[in-house]
Amino acid sequence: MVSVTFKVNGADVVMHAMEGDNLLAAAQRANVAIDAPCSGNGACGKCKVKLVSGELDSPQTRHISDEEYAQGWRLSCVSKLVSDVTVEVPDIASAYRSRMRVADISSEKELAIFNQTKAGIEEAGIEFKNNLSAVNVTMDAPTADDTMPDNERLAWKLEEVTGAEKVTISFAALKKLARVLRESDFSVRCVIETEGDRVNVLDVLPADDAAPVAGLVVDLGTTSVAAILVNMEDGSILAKASTGNGQIRYGADVINRIIESGREGGSERLQKAVIEESLRPLIQEMCAAAKISPKRVYRMCLAGNTTMNHLLLGLYAEPVRMDPYIPSFFLCDDVPVQALHLGLHPEAKLILAPNIGSYVGGDITAGAFASMLWNKEELSLFIDLGTNGELVFGNNEFMMSCACSAGPAFEGGDISCGMRATDGAIDSCTIDRETMEPSFTTIGDTKHPVGICGSGIIDIIAELFRAGIINGKGKFSREGRRIRHDENGMGSYVIAFKEDTGAVRDVSINEVDIDNFIRAKGAIFSATMTMLNSMGMDPSVLGHVYVAGGIGSGINMKNAVTIGMLPDIPLEMFSYIGNSSLSGAYAMLTSSQSREKVDELARSMTYLELSTEPGYMDSFVAACFLPHTDAALFPSVEV
Amino acid sequence: MVSVTFKVNGADVVMHAMEGDNLLAAAQRANVAIDAPCSGNGACGKCKVKLVSGELDSPQTRHISDEEYAQGWRLSCVSKLVSDVTVEVPDIASAYRSRMRVADISSEKELAIFNQTKAGIEEAGIEFKNNLSAVNVTMDAPTADDTMPDNERLAWKLEEVTGAEKVTISFAALKKLARVLRESDFSVRCVIETEGDRVNVLDVLPADDAAPVAGLVVDLGTTSVAAILVNMEDGSILAKASTGNGQIRYGADVINRIIESGREGGSERLQKAVIEESLRPLIQEMCAAAKISPKRVYRMCLAGNTTMNHLLLGLYAEPVRMDPYIPSFFLCDDVPVQALHLGLHPEAKLILAPNIGSYVGGDITAGAFASMLWNKEELSLFIDLGTNGELVFGNNEFMMSCACSAGPAFEGGDISCGMRATDGAIDSCTIDRETMEPSFTTIGDTKHPVGICGSGIIDIIAELFRAGIINGKGKFSREGRRIRHDENGMGSYVIAFKEDTGAVRDVSINEVDIDNFIRAKGAIFSATMTMLNSMGMDPSVLGHVYVAGGIGSGINMKNAVTIGMLPDIPLEMFSYIGNSSLSGAYAMLTSSQSREKVDELARSMTYLELSTEPGYMDSFVAACFLPHTDAALFPSVEV
Repeated sequence: MVSVTFKVNGADVVMHAMEGDNLLAAAQRANVAIDAPCSGNGACGKCKVKLVSGELDSPQTRHISDEEYAQGWRLSCVSKLVSDVTVEVPDIASAYRSRMRVADISSEKELAIFNQTKAGIEEAGIEFKNNLSAVNVTMDAPTADDTMPDNERLAWKLEEVTGAEKVTISFAALKKLARVLRESDFSVRCVIETEGDRVNVLDVLPADDAAPVAGLVVDLGTTSVAAILVNMEDGSILAKASTGNGQIRYGADVINRIIESGREGGSERLQKAVIEESLRPLIQEMCAAAKISPKRVYRMCLAGNTTMNHLLLGLYAEPVRMDPYIPSFFLCDDVPVQALHLGLHPEAKLILAPNIGSYVGGDITAGAFASMLWNKEELSLFIDLGTNGELVFGNNEFMMSCACSAGPAFEGGDISCGMRATDGAIDSCTIDRETMEPSFTTIGDTKHPVGICGSGIIDIIAELFRAGIINGKGKFSREGRRIRHDENGMGSYVIAFKEDTGAVRDVSINEVDIDNFIRAKGAIFSATMTMLNSMGMDPSVLGHVYVAGGIGSGINMKNAVTIGMLPDIPLEMFSYIGNSSLSGAYAMLTSSQSREKVDELARSMTYLELSTEPGYMDSFVAACFLPHTDAALFPSVEV
Repeated sequence: MVSVTFKVNGADVVMHAMEGDNLLAAAQRANVAIDAPCSGNGACGKCKVKLVSGELDSPQTRHISDEEYAQGWRLSCVSKLVSDVTVEVPDIASAYRSRMRVADISSEKELAIFNQTKAGIEEAGIEFKNNLSAVNVTMDAPTADDTMPDNERLAWKLEEVTGAEKVTISFAALKKLARVLRESDFSVRCVIETEGDRVNVLDVLPADDAAPVAGLVVDLGTTSVAAILVNMEDGSILAKASTGNGQIRYGADVINRIIESGREGGSERLQKAVIEESLRPLIQEMCAAAKISPKRVYRMCLAGNTTMNHLLLGLYAEPVRMDPYIPSFFLCDDVPVQALHLGLHPEAKLILAPNIGSYVGGDITAGAFASMLWNKEELSLFIDLGTNGELVFGNNEFMMSCACSAGPAFEGGDISCGMRATDGAIDSCTIDRETMEPSFTTIGDTKHPVGICGSGIIDIIAELFRAGIINGKGKFSREGRRIRHDENGMGSYVIAFKEDTGAVRDVSINEVDIDNFIRAKGAIFSATMTMLNSMGMDPSVLGHVYVAGGIGSGINMKNAVTIGMLPDIPLEMFSYIGNSSLSGAYAMLTSSQSREKVDELARSMTYLELSTEPGYMDSFVAACFLPHTDAALFPSVEV
């Protein structure tokens, strides 16, 4: 036995392990968060820790320079324990992953886009009505001549008031009933669920309780989690927040997460990570902002990709990634929320946006619904820029979907100064072609940029390319005060010097970042082309392109075309529709008609498996260039 | 602050309390079991503890003799803490309350009676069928051309096999589905619940799993808890067991329990006591005997009085005992068993036998059903001899019920050598009129009687009375080697000397025991008379009397008449029907028709409140005599 001390954020976590044990595995057992997006196979180089005392059997890998190795840096996934050891774990709260952000719902730009989306759904004649409501009733108090028990007394009154044929009282309501009735003189407010001529009482509150009947909407992404708290009775937004997915330290993409879930106890670890590190904190922050108890949340709708919803529910997910790629469910009956220990009302149910395949999940069915592409005659394309990029092409007669692995670059992952589109992120940028000096904007208009979100990266790459600072391969080809080269010759461009901004570090972009982003945009573009080609079509058929995702509302479509991410069609055909997965899930929660429609769309949507589609890999390789190896596809772009 | 050390069963429980705190309350906070059937009001004298060191501010009460006081005995409910103190807590596992007994289901006498009851129900044309079953299905494994998700694959197959229109898969089943399907080559055994043309899958097991689909039946009494584990598919008994109700230390009767439940945290304490000390151990013992996991129990039916079922569910019970005596429910929708933490299958539901009033509960509706009195033209009386005595009078046209407080004497409570009808209990006895020597039988035919159960007490009192050893007031009027008098002149009769039996104590009965029993039988007899009189009738109208309860199958009806407990009608009109509450709950669980019938009976049964009935108190006082102050009511009894 050896003793391992992890120094994390100023605290010591001490645990015991066997000699020969793997250091990363030991950290995971001790619930110490070490970043391991590749799930510990030595590929990503993110799980570096600094040896403070003791010894590790740990080779120097390509991810660790001589200087770093001499300083004590080791890759934990390749380190074996040989003695008592103390290691320092870097704070992995990189801005893009775990920072909690509670939105200012009076002014947030994303909420304006959300409201436009909602208006679009309403224009199509879809009602925003659901079957949860609160109703106030006053009963006669019992007497010696009127000894009806409490539950019948309430049911009888509710039948009278609501016209229901049958009223049932949930166990949670029954538990409180006797006390609440007597403490509030038989005048109560009931939270009810109406199903045809039946009413089920979820909760009983004193008549003067004015807190809203709340609902929770969650977009559960592989990298980011966004949520809104709503008033179920009028659909109004009570709070909005986002954070990182706590599972990220077990792998950056769905495949590595599934592999981890298949290990002993892995399924429980992943479920716990997303619930305890992401969902519960989100719920607590939003409820605090809205000044309500989480117990006032009576229903929840979640949209996430197929892997995310399997891992959230604690299901065995290996079959999702193994041929023939079979999930436990596409459409799932409502799940009792209590099983997830989120602290919501004990009778709350979870609605899941339906999946249509192992790699096209509820985020896409909800998002495609929100895009309203299914309601128009013109052919349109819906693109969700997430860790997986998913596309839906079609109109009011058919819909076809496909998925490609873009990686986390659109959300700022795999980018040295990348971050989610939250406060402090550079979200747009121009670069003077002569002086090479940038001017940029940040989310929240801060003077101290913290990093760069997806829309900012698109702008920077497009502008560097236009200014001839980088070439079509993304390599630096000019010199200047903002351009640097490291010992290996890797170039980078500094957007903001720390001296100028007072920030803790320079905000810059380097050739590896650009390369990662080029591969992400190449995946999206080649998926677009392969899907259109599979039907014998090309981008000229498109009437509209709806772009969704956490890339940031500042996305500049011209620049996205310039780097070859989006097809070269007239700019007015592009719309950024924000987090459509969240908007779609909101619609499913607050509008019964929307929910029916999403389930119907999911049943009719077809799926194109790109990996078996001829020409996809060639198309991808050809797209990994600025804007593309075939310049004829981008006539509007000056090369 | 003072430190309190409780010495319990050889262990020390140390806790801290404030000076001036009550010792009994401190013990209850520390979860130390001190017997307090009167709920700590100084009335019963059961909460004696022995002071080992330190001081207590504690008066000597009538329950503590000079000698006992000198030895350190104190009544904990009247003791105030004034210094650090160590007290010895007597082991309160009195035989009648907490001894777990697992029945030998191959031969138990009570089970023979149970089977007769079941046969009686079947003869009336009621089917023993319910909607739980197991069904084996084999599916095709998925392929690249057949990518249906697991839940649809199973639902589709079950629709084919069962003919159901709609199949839903519970969350518990969904959680296991992917793994079980793959580990058993897509051949599985499903535990299903059928509701019209819908099927709900509760569990998915490997096809070769042969464990039964189990159900649990519980008779939750104020003093005793009895349970059986059944096979839901064929109704066979898998195990049977009984134990004491762990709530008893918070009060012997329902009123004291409700008072305790109204104190801070009381409701949780009482719920925890019955679940952790009674139900979970019963379930574990029975499942161990039947060699199945408690997770294989998919449904549960419980019959208990109104207070017991409220306290089990953790409901606020004060309104049950306060004018106008309003329970939370009579009929209750099925309760999710998971909320009770019994360790059963997570999708299991609890069916409660319906109450009809605050003092006539599910034990009586289930029991009256099992008696079959509702199916006959003749007028009959059903008597359940529990801590509350409850009676139902009627036939196939009407049913009237009433309740009286008999105390725990019928189950051996409040009797110095009393015990439940389990192994070692004297269950029948005769006494030679000349020599005054007894001969007795014991349950389990042991040579070492441990105590006396209800049927034994009836026999002993009747025989002492016949032999002229006691008079009509229950006082000793003869002398002999088995008759003793203590310092206060209280007489007692020794049935078994410890020297003769090798037991740890003499088994005897004293005047206080006899007095307690006379009051219990007086309550039953006066209730009988008052109910008959309220309809202008007398015992001569009775065609049958069904006697039920934990009094023991050896009950001698002639002796019960002799002591004036049962009316003086021909002996062939009496039947002992055992634990009818348990039989009725068994029928409700295993037979859907029985459940409907019990609910229907509950709705039609009327309730007579004895306390407001003229003459009841006078009738009770008159009945507290052997056999009765009005000897004309018992012409067959020689006085």
